[in-house]
Amino acid sequence: MSHQCQFRVYYEDTDAGGVVYYANYLRFAERARTEWLRELGFHQSTMWQELSCGIVVANCSIAYKKPAKLDDLLTIESQLQSMSKARMSMVQKITCESVVLAEIDVDLACVNQAIRPLAWPEPLVRAFSPFEPSNP
Amino acid sequence: MSHQCQFRVYYEDTDAGGVVYYANYLRFAERARTEWLRELGFHQSTMWQELSCGIVVANCSIAYKKPAKLDDLLTIESQLQSMSKARMSMVQKITCESVVLAEIDVDLACVNQAIRPLAWPEPLVRAFSPFEPSNP
Amino acid sequence: MSHQCQFRVYYEDTDAGGVVYYANYLRFAERARTEWLRELGFHQSTMWQELSCGIVVANCSIAYKKPAKLDDLLTIESQLQSMSKARMSMVQKITCESVVLAEIDVDLACVNQAIRPLAWPEPLVRAFSPFEPSNP
Amino acid sequence: MSHQCQFRVYYEDTDAGGVVYYANYLRFAERARTEWLRELGFHQSTMWQELSCGIVVANCSIAYKKPAKLDDLLTIESQLQSMSKARMSMVQKITCESVVLAEIDVDLACVNQAIRPLAWPEPLVRAFSPFEPSNP
Repeated sequence: MSHQCQFRVYYEDTDAGGVVYYANYLRFAERARTEWLRELGFHQSTMWQELSCGIVVANCSIAYKKPAKLDDLLTIESQLQSMSKARMSMVQKITCESVVLAEIDVDLACVNQAIRPLAWPEPLVRAFSPFEPSNP
Repeated sequence: MSHQCQFRVYYEDTDAGGVVYYANYLRFAERARTEWLRELGFHQSTMWQELSCGIVVANCSIAYKKPAKLDDLLTIESQLQSMSKARMSMVQKITCESVVLAEIDVDLACVNQAIRPLAWPEPLVRAFSPFEPSNP
Repeated sequence: MSHQCQFRVYYEDTDAGGVVYYANYLRFAERARTEWLRELGFHQSTMWQELSCGIVVANCSIAYKKPAKLDDLLTIESQLQSMSKARMSMVQKITCESVVLAEIDVDLACVNQAIRPLAWPEPLVRAFSPFEPSNP
Repeated sequence: MSHQCQFRVYYEDTDAGGVVYYANYLRFAERARTEWLRELGFHQSTMWQELSCGIVVANCSIAYKKPAKLDDLLTIESQLQSMSKARMSMVQKITCESVVLAEIDVDLACVNQAIRPLAWPEPLVRAFSPFEPSNP
């Protein structure tokens, strides 16, 4: 029960070291989360109007395993780890041809417009709960 | 006789003005050129080894018509205008739902590793010549 | 009668070609315009509240002369070319150790929140008019 | 015993949420590390030639406390935590007017051109050892 999507590496993503710039892995991770939300029916651009909330990253950690390179087709696999009243933890794995390049742990928080914690709105809870790892 | 591809606008592309940051239209344009090359069999990452040349932007001008926004699905249509021994001119139109957002004129140059002008390699001339506007 | 400021090139600005990514020259140009405004007493973040207007780029063209490289200390020299009721044209030259790397022509427009043309507010006209090239 | 430097937030750093895009805090952190190296006499652009090594980020984690905004003048304070044969750990704090906005833990690795672990070169060890927290 995870979400997958793919993005190509372009010149803009790389740096003079010849590989993807270390901060840009987080851009691929954010695109993947946005696409997962989109598939579940939520759009970042209309969430404020429709659900009166926004999603922000509270914490994130990334382990760089191998560099991504120009023209690589990256697969981003996102998995829900846990979901509480106002937080959500995901693990996101970036691979290229089945080789793991980076692993990202990200804590997302639901916030109001003053960027204060807010409980996840009901539709979002309903949409993500099937993805929660089952507790035996 | 033009090339078309599509890219989604993510948070990373926008700025605090609420729209796509003005320099980032050039990133979409570059992705489109790279995809056109890929479809014709050329890859930016291997061009140096295989053709001993690179492609650089010599000049580029952009007219901003309407802002692109978060979640927009952008279409980039690229058209060859002219091709000389070592130069190529393209017009690239960025649209969203048929509305023109930006128009880009770009002059590309073929260079060697010292970034000196070089004649386009034969395979590249052959690949692009069908796209040259016919001269009656 | 021009404005000058300097910015360092970091890894984030470069690409796998080993030089500054072509779109990122526009980021340096924007920083320079923002710093010029700041020295004249205007801040992008408060302009909407204080002057009920924003500044957008309407057109821009850039000629790439020589590549900027990692660790280069770039000088951006900005010069006002002309100023009309709702438009302003600037030339911005990016140099490194007196070598011209890029030349940018940029047309700026004053807009309201609907991104419709607006006359420049009086304080902005007063601030920039000393920089207009004299008409003999 | 820490290093400090300052960077301004420009439009390019922000996103449509009105604040600095979450990945871009890592760009400020990298600029700060580069400036620290520069003050100690090391330049990213010549390290390969002069020391036959490069520095890559192996792991990094970031806690987002409060958002940075357009026009903010950010202070990045970098502190060495530990240094082993081929690794270095730093804590980097991003503040604005003494308010902590983000805290970053970063593990740096010394690598050869094949991106394989390498012992830190002697000059780099000598330069950073005064910054190691004393072990009582």
